[in-house]
Amino acid sequence: MSVLRVAGAQLPNAVGDLSGNRERALDAMRWAETVGADVLLLPELALTGYPLEDLTHRLDFVEAAKGALQALAAEAGAVTTIVGTIDTVPPRKSWDTRPREIANAAALLCDGEIRGIYHKVLLPTYGVFDEARNFAPGTEPGAVWRIGATLAGVCVCEDIWSSDGPPEAQASAGAQVLLVLNASLFYRAKPERRLALAGSVAQRNGLPLVYVNCVGGQGELVFDGGSLVLDRTGEPRFRVDQFEPTRFCVDVEVATPRPVSSSARTVHARIGPERSALPAPPSPPQLDELEQVWRALVMGTRDFARRAGRDAAVLGLSGGIDAAVTAAIAADALGPERVLGVAMPTARSPARDLTDARRLAERLGIGFEVVAMDPIMSALGGALAPLLEGRPAGEVRHDLLARMRGATLLATSEALGQLALASGNKTELSIGSATLHGDMAGDFAPVKDCPKTLLYRLARHRNARDAAIPEEILSKPPSALLDEGANRPPYDVLDPIVERYVEDGKGFEEIVCAGLDPAVVRGVLQLIDDAEPQRRLIPPGVKVSDRAFGKDLRMPISNAWRPFSAEEARLVPRGEPDPP
Amino acid sequence: MSVLRVAGAQLPNAVGDLSGNRERALDAMRWAETVGADVLLLPELALTGYPLEDLTHRLDFVEAAKGALQALAAEAGAVTTIVGTIDTVPPRKSWDTRPREIANAAALLCDGEIRGIYHKVLLPTYGVFDEARNFAPGTEPGAVWRIGATLAGVCVCEDIWSSDGPPEAQASAGAQVLLVLNASLFYRAKPERRLALAGSVAQRNGLPLVYVNCVGGQGELVFDGGSLVLDRTGEPRFRVDQFEPTRFCVDVEVATPRPVSSSARTVHARIGPERSALPAPPSPPQLDELEQVWRALVMGTRDFARRAGRDAAVLGLSGGIDAAVTAAIAADALGPERVLGVAMPTARSPARDLTDARRLAERLGIGFEVVAMDPIMSALGGALAPLLEGRPAGEVRHDLLARMRGATLLATSEALGQLALASGNKTELSIGSATLHGDMAGDFAPVKDCPKTLLYRLARHRNARDAAIPEEILSKPPSALLDEGANRPPYDVLDPIVERYVEDGKGFEEIVCAGLDPAVVRGVLQLIDDAEPQRRLIPPGVKVSDRAFGKDLRMPISNAWRPFSAEEARLVPRGEPDPP
Repeated sequence: MSVLRVAGAQLPNAVGDLSGNRERALDAMRWAETVGADVLLLPELALTGYPLEDLTHRLDFVEAAKGALQALAAEAGAVTTIVGTIDTVPPRKSWDTRPREIANAAALLCDGEIRGIYHKVLLPTYGVFDEARNFAPGTEPGAVWRIGATLAGVCVCEDIWSSDGPPEAQASAGAQVLLVLNASLFYRAKPERRLALAGSVAQRNGLPLVYVNCVGGQGELVFDGGSLVLDRTGEPRFRVDQFEPTRFCVDVEVATPRPVSSSARTVHARIGPERSALPAPPSPPQLDELEQVWRALVMGTRDFARRAGRDAAVLGLSGGIDAAVTAAIAADALGPERVLGVAMPTARSPARDLTDARRLAERLGIGFEVVAMDPIMSALGGALAPLLEGRPAGEVRHDLLARMRGATLLATSEALGQLALASGNKTELSIGSATLHGDMAGDFAPVKDCPKTLLYRLARHRNARDAAIPEEILSKPPSALLDEGANRPPYDVLDPIVERYVEDGKGFEEIVCAGLDPAVVRGVLQLIDDAEPQRRLIPPGVKVSDRAFGKDLRMPISNAWRPFSAEEARLVPRGEPDPP
Repeated sequence: MSVLRVAGAQLPNAVGDLSGNRERALDAMRWAETVGADVLLLPELALTGYPLEDLTHRLDFVEAAKGALQALAAEAGAVTTIVGTIDTVPPRKSWDTRPREIANAAALLCDGEIRGIYHKVLLPTYGVFDEARNFAPGTEPGAVWRIGATLAGVCVCEDIWSSDGPPEAQASAGAQVLLVLNASLFYRAKPERRLALAGSVAQRNGLPLVYVNCVGGQGELVFDGGSLVLDRTGEPRFRVDQFEPTRFCVDVEVATPRPVSSSARTVHARIGPERSALPAPPSPPQLDELEQVWRALVMGTRDFARRAGRDAAVLGLSGGIDAAVTAAIAADALGPERVLGVAMPTARSPARDLTDARRLAERLGIGFEVVAMDPIMSALGGALAPLLEGRPAGEVRHDLLARMRGATLLATSEALGQLALASGNKTELSIGSATLHGDMAGDFAPVKDCPKTLLYRLARHRNARDAAIPEEILSKPPSALLDEGANRPPYDVLDPIVERYVEDGKGFEEIVCAGLDPAVVRGVLQLIDDAEPQRRLIPPGVKVSDRAFGKDLRMPISNAWRPFSAEEARLVPRGEPDPP
């Protein structure tokens, strides 16, 4: 049984940071030489960062990336380094009339040279992915690479998510091992799906598989690492930490040589000494799902701030659960000394809300300030009175107050040069009860993809560490429920509907089949559809579900298609009296 | 010479409005029977609206659309109707691992039945288009259709934008005429490009071509109509009005019969009487470019309001050019009686700005209110003083004032149930001098794709009608220039750089080659790159350029890639003193 010693570097994902990425790749290359690896595997687009989006159209960037690859190749030694980057290819039209000249590539570096380049064949163009927009598809799915005594297949991410794609072509071309570069993003069910998928690819093709992922937040996305090594039966032999840059080196027993097709290229022909496989190091313990989500929220917030050039944040502290969880995320992401909580009470605000907000700030160790809203509201109310004559005062006042709080927060963050964090959650955003420019005002909304019931679970999870979120905040009734009262279902009814409709893409019939009340479901689906225009104006936030609002879900703004009539979609009252 | 009488209906584009679209199609079908047409051509996705985006994933919608097509087919008589809609196809994986089951289709209806369906082959996936995300590609580019004595090729939009695509396949399969369904969007250079393209397709294939487009705004896009009929030499024989739903009927001399491939399908086999071609009706006069842009802005704003369920709008009137043009667009789009202008002066605002704003409102006939900002600002200043201690008062005040104006406007619009219009322009948005939540606060920003110099031209163009925009507004120096003073170039230097970099996608070298000062260009490009995070939070607006900010330009948020060092990118001072 032949052994390939494969080193992997789970590098940070930094879009556009060519010099930083090159340095980090080079460090890994030097380390791989010291551990006697045969191959060093780096993530998809490790040199350029992922996703590049329309940076692929910037010729200056493309040239700089090619220069960075040349420079990296010049430093390559005996270890074959496989690094993700972009490559230029002859203009190619595929699904439309626009030629693409850039490929998503894996370059094989050795002995100071670029010895080969593989071009990603399958280009994901669904969910948050737009790769068919930016890349030309590879045309050689069955390419295999001779690295000393071993014939290796190289795939990039989506390439292995088909049941009849590059891994199958490479297996039949004689590959003995599959080396897979990834930029695989996190959502709640993802780590298990990834493991099952990689297992089935290895098992189906009878080949061991090394899967290297990157880590870090980029825009709304978080890449969670969790690199994998599987044997030829599909059993995991080694799993790497999530949410941390790290390196690993594992001896992989490659499949016995098979007949080799003409598509094999030689990276180098040095046959090393026979060696027996050392056992894989022990894998770190798996994080439970809530901890994974928490780390994704923290990493996504930290890296967004960094990319936007901000290192501190300000947010409103209402004394409610949304703001409390957002504050705890910010404290973990930036350090409590770099977070400022601002309470913005009126004379009518319950005193306990201010107490709870202050206590939260104290326990988290973040800054705390109080801005009394009454003088601002009276001034504004006086000024707007002629315009709003005849409008119900309470309704106007509620909107105005939320907006003035949002505006106060934004003005403060701008003056202080800090990031403003919005605290709106996915449930409110779904049904249209988030206030645009109110609780949705900010540069970034960490929990916008977290339904309300998940926020409670996250709060209790975070509290297991140091009980920073006061129990009073967890036990008081949510204010949105009080405000809107009888005509909306409670969160434990809402969230399963939101989850099925938005995240799972199920329709009315399927949702009702799951045993939910048709009248309530109809009403909630209508609210979700009606809130689409609002969702165009919300800040980015961390994706933690299979489908987040944003790039994942691209709905046209149109009130013309509604599956239910207004009559059909009337929410069933919950039978409780309106609050006074 | 054989003659095909082709009727075309340039229908409104209404996404999701299945019943309205079906009614309008049916009206056109009845009309086509009365004019003795052989064929009635409707636009791309006429039955469903365009673009559908992820509505294609909604099974309830897909089923309803198929039902609407069946119902329409049942009404079809002797005239062959070709209507754009969606169709379900066997699941097909193409460029990634996700199967698509929906095709962008052209259905051929006749004698109460669906007699054939063509599936669009080329799926645009660039600029604002995401069709590879949502559709399966057609697999029969060379299908041709026997309609009585004539063999016709049917194409959908992008299908004809290749030099070796479905038109070429259909010509070699025996087509005598090309019938093209389109949802072709407007931008400034588009009508000329469209004409040149259609001409070259007709001429290259030696076939007459009928090109039918839809009209109307959808989200950021405007479809401008301007349907076309060209003869086999590529010469235009008839051009239809832009920006208006309309119908036409033209006798087309089809090419002489050619050898027919096996891919021909029969829609019907009735051979009508020989007839000689009637001359085409006279084409309406061409609109000049500024009038085209004006109508696009008006149509885009009107239809956005309608889709968002609003019929009136409120906007801030600063006395400046941006607000003046936005107000005029709103008045033309919604009717002056449905537009409210709000001036929000402080004691320090120049008196002439208020005078100019009032005069503008009077001349446009829109509502006008004044909200004095000083009481609000003092209340806010007092409340925020402890937070902002030590910050330069002027700088903070400027941001706060812009934001409070934005917040006031948003609160007013919400309370009145109206659309809030933002007035920021493309120049400011490019270089980062638009104020988020300030002049960029609103539900819709009509002129966000218009550079400042274009706004002046548009204002003078609109004034040729009734001089509604006071000359004082056109002649005063722009306030942004006064505020930022010496460290930024004037608009007539900025705009050509913005246009080349953002709209034409040119790089530094190419821009400098055009004769512009390298130091200034470097500084402006840096400002544009740095402002990317701000552009995530701006409302939608009307696309009138080849590349608008929004879906057209998808840049990652990252401060890591900058082609210039901060030192290199320093703007060259203009040699004028800072304003006091």
